[in-house]
Amino acid sequence: MEISKKEHIRKKLHEIIYEADTPFGKLFDLFLLVLIVISIVAVMLESMAGVYSKYGKELEIIEWVITIFFTMEYIARIIAVKRPLKYIFSTYGLIDLLATLPAYIDLLFPGLHFLLSIRAIRLLRVFRILKLGHFVGASNQLVVALKKAKLKIAVFLFNVIVLCIILGTIMFMIEGPENGFTSIPMGIYWTIVTLTTVGFGDITPQTPFGQFVSVIIMILGYGIIAVPTGLVTAEFMSRDKTIHDNTQVCPNCSADHHRNDAGFCYNCGHSLND
Amino acid sequence: MEISKKEHIRKKLHEIIYEADTPFGKLFDLFLLVLIVISIVAVMLESMAGVYSKYGKELEIIEWVITIFFTMEYIARIIAVKRPLKYIFSTYGLIDLLATLPAYIDLLFPGLHFLLSIRAIRLLRVFRILKLGHFVGASNQLVVALKKAKLKIAVFLFNVIVLCIILGTIMFMIEGPENGFTSIPMGIYWTIVTLTTVGFGDITPQTPFGQFVSVIIMILGYGIIAVPTGLVTAEFMSRDKTIHDNTQVCPNCSADHHRNDAGFCYNCGHSLND
Amino acid sequence: MEISKKEHIRKKLHEIIYEADTPFGKLFDLFLLVLIVISIVAVMLESMAGVYSKYGKELEIIEWVITIFFTMEYIARIIAVKRPLKYIFSTYGLIDLLATLPAYIDLLFPGLHFLLSIRAIRLLRVFRILKLGHFVGASNQLVVALKKAKLKIAVFLFNVIVLCIILGTIMFMIEGPENGFTSIPMGIYWTIVTLTTVGFGDITPQTPFGQFVSVIIMILGYGIIAVPTGLVTAEFMSRDKTIHDNTQVCPNCSADHHRNDAGFCYNCGHSLND
Amino acid sequence: MEISKKEHIRKKLHEIIYEADTPFGKLFDLFLLVLIVISIVAVMLESMAGVYSKYGKELEIIEWVITIFFTMEYIARIIAVKRPLKYIFSTYGLIDLLATLPAYIDLLFPGLHFLLSIRAIRLLRVFRILKLGHFVGASNQLVVALKKAKLKIAVFLFNVIVLCIILGTIMFMIEGPENGFTSIPMGIYWTIVTLTTVGFGDITPQTPFGQFVSVIIMILGYGIIAVPTGLVTAEFMSRDKTIHDNTQVCPNCSADHHRNDAGFCYNCGHSLND
Repeated sequence: MEISKKEHIRKKLHEIIYEADTPFGKLFDLFLLVLIVISIVAVMLESMAGVYSKYGKELEIIEWVITIFFTMEYIARIIAVKRPLKYIFSTYGLIDLLATLPAYIDLLFPGLHFLLSIRAIRLLRVFRILKLGHFVGASNQLVVALKKAKLKIAVFLFNVIVLCIILGTIMFMIEGPENGFTSIPMGIYWTIVTLTTVGFGDITPQTPFGQFVSVIIMILGYGIIAVPTGLVTAEFMSRDKTIHDNTQVCPNCSADHHRNDAGFCYNCGHSLND
Repeated sequence: MEISKKEHIRKKLHEIIYEADTPFGKLFDLFLLVLIVISIVAVMLESMAGVYSKYGKELEIIEWVITIFFTMEYIARIIAVKRPLKYIFSTYGLIDLLATLPAYIDLLFPGLHFLLSIRAIRLLRVFRILKLGHFVGASNQLVVALKKAKLKIAVFLFNVIVLCIILGTIMFMIEGPENGFTSIPMGIYWTIVTLTTVGFGDITPQTPFGQFVSVIIMILGYGIIAVPTGLVTAEFMSRDKTIHDNTQVCPNCSADHHRNDAGFCYNCGHSLND
Repeated sequence: MEISKKEHIRKKLHEIIYEADTPFGKLFDLFLLVLIVISIVAVMLESMAGVYSKYGKELEIIEWVITIFFTMEYIARIIAVKRPLKYIFSTYGLIDLLATLPAYIDLLFPGLHFLLSIRAIRLLRVFRILKLGHFVGASNQLVVALKKAKLKIAVFLFNVIVLCIILGTIMFMIEGPENGFTSIPMGIYWTIVTLTTVGFGDITPQTPFGQFVSVIIMILGYGIIAVPTGLVTAEFMSRDKTIHDNTQVCPNCSADHHRNDAGFCYNCGHSLND
Repeated sequence: MEISKKEHIRKKLHEIIYEADTPFGKLFDLFLLVLIVISIVAVMLESMAGVYSKYGKELEIIEWVITIFFTMEYIARIIAVKRPLKYIFSTYGLIDLLATLPAYIDLLFPGLHFLLSIRAIRLLRVFRILKLGHFVGASNQLVVALKKAKLKIAVFLFNVIVLCIILGTIMFMIEGPENGFTSIPMGIYWTIVTLTTVGFGDITPQTPFGQFVSVIIMILGYGIIAVPTGLVTAEFMSRDKTIHDNTQVCPNCSADHHRNDAGFCYNCGHSLND
């Protein structure tokens, strides 16, 4: 009896915390979002010296109230779920943990509570509440396309980094510490700032030869930005194509990915329309 | 009689103000464009301290003459149209109102008359006058493609903003107020300046670790710019396909994907218009 | 006799100056390129105060020798061509004129001779000498694709400029002259610097609200860069499609651009395979 | 006997140094990567004045030990390979030479040993070790696509450079040395900094007319970045298409565009391999 009552509470909890379809579930998710926004705003205000000196106490109280609520919510989530360990080590579980941890760590290492802004990640659950399908779909499409292009982007970035190490060294040797290029790592930092077309201007080449090499780096950066863009675009497009692809499977040999107008299997020649 | 005369004037007004086909309508639209350009130049000149101290009076007179004309035009538009309320709350109606309002508000809150540069939006009616079909078509195509990609872009931007909140907090914690990162919002501002590859250089990382994180932010920004570009390009391409698509099916052999201007089936030569 | 001799010289001249196939023509073009490079380098060196004070005389002599040669070449081109007026008002003719004119104008308005660097345009004739077909083809493809996308890009830019006028005004009103936004044109200049992600950092927003609006401008700029890229890419792709299209022409009605798998004319229904 | 023994050692050496499939080969490659990373870190640390004054000796020793090892490896590679000259003048051979040379050159021209960071190129052999096929494939695809687009990109860049020479001259004439545009080359440097949207801000236009021209340069740069991106994207896409293209035609019904791995016609089911 006791156990079934507990089980009933667990189910009820699960319904409220995990589901976004029921009115209570929706309300709970909405309430969470509001809390997250409040807590992020509080952390931001706390970081401003002027505001902190005036309202520091109040902001700290708000922060702790919300942190305690989130801690309780985290515990409730562990209780409510069937397989607690699976939740704890899931992406969602780790984010929920990270959203409370900094407040406690701050007790040992003051200053780290600013990391509470990690809670912003939890804002992404807004897509769950809106649950218009569209949002989740659009998000998934993005993720799938990026995952497919991931490998090529990794190869591209690795090449870019090697290039930056060499160009950064050359710039360090040309300009030297007297022009702000104090070391090779500084030269690499400058090269990346330039190649990505960010261009802070905190360090700039002063010698004619340094400016000449800079120009080459800029044009390189201007050109190779085409590569990741091209990769991702091609991926988006080919996904589009996949969507319009034939989902038929050969009744004889189970081959798939037939042409849309195929009447016969490309693999075994069996009719697809039987 | 009276009523039909009024109706006649209304129609005449409508013809001049709303239509761009008749010579008078064209002339009126052209006159409007010239006035808009003059008034924007006047507002710009007024904003320059040196010019204002010399020609302030003259510029204010020009501004008021044009504003009064635009006000009269706005009233005429309301009179001339059949359903005034529909016009008033349409995009065009609101822009026309906004193009005169700042001058009057300025009487209460001096300084707001600079907002008259909102009139620039009215310059977009140049496409109506040119009315080459092409321009409107090109504009529509842009709008349709962007609308389709809107949802994905929204999801993308939301993710980017969450990322910027976290990265901005981390940069604030690493660099701190002594290096210009005076608060978390300032850190987020800097992160967005860097991620979008704008790179003002008003605040720059000074610590080696801050520079290391900056480099990661820059490479991230360099990479993820590919996402909106990829999305919009894919949308443009799929629109291109749709435009040239023909959904007709040959009544004889059922072949499809005919050219849009096809009169006969490419497969069997049968007429498509039977 | 006299006339035919003149005609002979004209033909010979034409062969040398205009044709790049004959050995003499090739040599002449190569010689021109070398002269152009020398003259541009001379103009650059002259613009450096340190070099000018030392070698000013020598550089001026070089410049004048080359200018006189180019003038003679220009006259020779007019003589050698059959329809001189057509050449004079062609793009090539105007460039050739512009390449010599600044030196003479400089006699009246000193300082304008720097415009001789316009000669750089003539360097583009390197593609004519290389005449590998590829280069010209690649160049043409670029031009055709850009021409097709021109209208859409114009509409896009017009919208961007209107946006910049309004945003520039708002930034001027928020930040004001005390923060470097001295006038509306200055605000527009800053907005374009920011929107295009150039970000000089000579003027930066100082007020929190100004920084907030800046962030929106930056994200806008980061997003709308996708539009021209998408337009041009779509154009390049659709061109690619055209290239792979059917080059058959209907034997009956001469219609072209048939589907690749067409067996019958889409226009008249006549068989394409007769 | 002697010869066959030598041959045996050569084969063994070849197996270890050149092959990444055998356990020894893998270990050797891994060991190389670790050494490269250590040596690059050492060079970086040496370039920092603070670290060098403390640990200069130790770092120099590390550097020399690794350099001697790389030199021995280079000699071993020449011995182990069948055609030494082919290896020496191959890309790999030249990189391997460049990775040791700077240390020796430094004995004659102190300071050049920083070029040892060229060793970073050797890090790219990480793809060989991972040898997941994917990486190499992704890398190859990138290279092929870029090679195809190379010509068009070259034409594009040449045009951009000519544009920059002219715009740089104009900016120099407008702004002049008093505003930082000390010479035409400086003006060209500034134009490229602006056109590529890097925007250091070390030199900025001060005159209204200079700012107006700058705005045009920025919008130009914002627009023409679309060109290389469009080119590369189109290349990636057409590659995707090429890969999936099959030029086979069904011997029975002449249908084409079969899947690359098709054994039977999608249209009539006839075998394609008869």
